[in-house]
Amino acid sequence: MELNEIYEPVQEDLLKVEERLKSVSKTEQLHLSELLGYSLEGTGKMIRPALTLLSGKFYNYNIENLLAMATAVEVMHTATLIHDDAIDNSTVRRGRSTVNGLWGEDEAVLLGDYLFAEAGAITATTENLRVIRNFAETLKTISSGEINQAYNSYNLEQNRDQYFRRIAQKTAALFALSMESGAVLSDAPEGSVQILIDYGYNLGIAFQIVDDVLDFTGTEEELGKPVGSDLSQGTLTLPSILILENYPEDNPVKRLFESKGKRDEIGLAIDMVSNSSIAQECYAVAREYCEKAGGKLKQLPDNRSRLSLMELAEYITHRNK
Amino acid sequence: MELNEIYEPVQEDLLKVEERLKSVSKTEQLHLSELLGYSLEGTGKMIRPALTLLSGKFYNYNIENLLAMATAVEVMHTATLIHDDAIDNSTVRRGRSTVNGLWGEDEAVLLGDYLFAEAGAITATTENLRVIRNFAETLKTISSGEINQAYNSYNLEQNRDQYFRRIAQKTAALFALSMESGAVLSDAPEGSVQILIDYGYNLGIAFQIVDDVLDFTGTEEELGKPVGSDLSQGTLTLPSILILENYPEDNPVKRLFESKGKRDEIGLAIDMVSNSSIAQECYAVAREYCEKAGGKLKQLPDNRSRLSLMELAEYITHRNK
Repeated sequence: MELNEIYEPVQEDLLKVEERLKSVSKTEQLHLSELLGYSLEGTGKMIRPALTLLSGKFYNYNIENLLAMATAVEVMHTATLIHDDAIDNSTVRRGRSTVNGLWGEDEAVLLGDYLFAEAGAITATTENLRVIRNFAETLKTISSGEINQAYNSYNLEQNRDQYFRRIAQKTAALFALSMESGAVLSDAPEGSVQILIDYGYNLGIAFQIVDDVLDFTGTEEELGKPVGSDLSQGTLTLPSILILENYPEDNPVKRLFESKGKRDEIGLAIDMVSNSSIAQECYAVAREYCEKAGGKLKQLPDNRSRLSLMELAEYITHRNK
Repeated sequence: MELNEIYEPVQEDLLKVEERLKSVSKTEQLHLSELLGYSLEGTGKMIRPALTLLSGKFYNYNIENLLAMATAVEVMHTATLIHDDAIDNSTVRRGRSTVNGLWGEDEAVLLGDYLFAEAGAITATTENLRVIRNFAETLKTISSGEINQAYNSYNLEQNRDQYFRRIAQKTAALFALSMESGAVLSDAPEGSVQILIDYGYNLGIAFQIVDDVLDFTGTEEELGKPVGSDLSQGTLTLPSILILENYPEDNPVKRLFESKGKRDEIGLAIDMVSNSSIAQECYAVAREYCEKAGGKLKQLPDNRSRLSLMELAEYITHRNK
C-alpha cells in the first residue's frame, strides 16, 4: 500500500498545506525567501501534517485551524532537520544538498530559528491555548532529546531504556503533538484525545526504530543520504545496541566508539545488522509499538480516517525509505 | 546615574525574575540543567525584563503575568546570544566563556533551541493571544535581521538605511516587544500601548548604536569580550559606515573587507573611530533616538516608572558597557 492511498481522506487538504508551505517563503527579504523556498520545497513524506488532518476527522473538522496546525508541524519538523544537518555537517538529505551544505552552517542555524518562530506564529493563529502551550513544550522536549543525543555521542554506556527515552523526545513527541492538535482543534472529547495522542506516540516510536534500522539496511538512493550516518555521528540506536548486547566481547560498534570514530568499522557494523537477526528483532519491536498504536483506535468513530490510521501503522514497518 | 537606581520601582520584582531564571534550569536531565544553569546565571544588564516591568506600571500591574513575560524576554534574549556566539565562534561574553566555548557549537545550537521554546512556553502562561503572537513574530524578525547580517558579511555596499533596518530587526524589535507585553498585560489603553512600543523601538535603536560604538571605543574588560568583534565578523555598523562615508578613497574598513578579513586592519579602524569625530557623530544619532523615545512619555500617567524610563533613555548614551 502506498502513502497516497493511505492519505486519501486528507489528500486534497494536504495539497493546501503544501500551498501554505510555499506561502511561508514569501517575505520582503530576497535572500531569506530563497532559503525558505529551498528548504520548504523538498518536503518528504508529510506524515506529521497528515496525522494532524486525519486526527481532526473524527469530530468537528475545523478546516482553517487544522490546515494551520498541519502546516505548523511540518514547518517545525523542517526546522529541526535543518538544525540537525547543520550540527551533523550533513551535506545531503532527501537526495538534495542541505541548507548548511549550500549556504553554510551559520545561515542554517538562523534559518532554523526563523522556521521555529514561523511554526509558532502559525500555531498562534489557531488561538487555542492548549495547542499553543503544547507546541512550545514539544519543542522543549525535542531539543532536550537532541541535547541528550549530542551529549552521549560515542558513549557506549547506553541501554535500550535510554534509547527509547531519547526517541520518545526526539520523534514521538512531535507525532503525539500532531495527533493531539488535530484532536483538540476538532473538539474531540478528552477520552478520544488521549487515544489519538497514544496513537501518535507509539507510531512515532515505531517510525524512529524503523528509521534507525534503515540507516543500516537501506541504500543511499532509498535513504536520500549516506548509509550508516548514525554511527558516523557516534549515535547508538537500537540496531547498534543489539550488536553490543549480542556480541559483548568484541564488535565493530565497540571498536568504532572506543576509537571515537577514527577506526573504519561502519561497513562491518552494517554487514552485521544485515546478516544477522538484528534487523528482524528491531522490526519485531517496531511492530509491537504499531500494534499498541492501532489497539485503541477501535474505540473511535468508524470512518475512512480511522482506517487510514490503521493502515499507516501497518505501513510504517513496511516502508523502505 | 546607575542602573539599579533607575530600576528602583521594579528592583524587587527583578530579583523575582532572577529567581525564575534559576528555576528554568531545573530539569530532569542533569547535563541539560548544567547547560541551562550556566547560561542563565551570567545575566547582564536585565534591560529587557526591566522594560517589561516598568511598562506594566502605568495601569493594572498584573504581577504574575508581568513576571512571566519579563522572564520570557530575558530567556529569549539569552537564546539569541547563545546562537550568535555559536555562529561567530566567540569564546568570551560578559567576561565568561561562551556555551560553544565550553561545550561546543552543537550543544550551543540545541541549547538555544531549547531556550527559544522555554521562552515561548513561559509566554504562553500569560494566556494572552496578542502577546503570544507578538512573541513569535518578534523571533521571526530577529532571525530575519541575523540572516540579513550573515548574508551581508564583508559586503561593502551597505548604507545607513540598511544598517538601521537591520538593527531595528536585530535589537529594537525585542525592546519593543518587552514594552508592548508590559503594556498589554497591564491593560493599558491602546494609545498608551503605542507610546510604550515607540519608546521601546527608539530606545532599542539607540542602545544598538551605542553598542556598536563601544565595540570600537571600549576596552576588553568593559565589554567582557574582544574589541572590534563586529569588524572581525565582517559586519558593518554605524561607525564603520561613517569611516566609509568620510574616507571614501581608501580606509582600513575597505581594505579589511576587500581582503575578506585577511588583512590586519582592525586596530587602524579602531584608532580612526576613536581619534576622529565619528564616535561623537554616532552618539549624536543615538541621542536623537533617545529623545524620540522619551518624547511622548509625557502623555502617560506621571509616576516613578515614567521617570525611570526617562532616566533610562538618558543612561543609554552614557553607559560604557
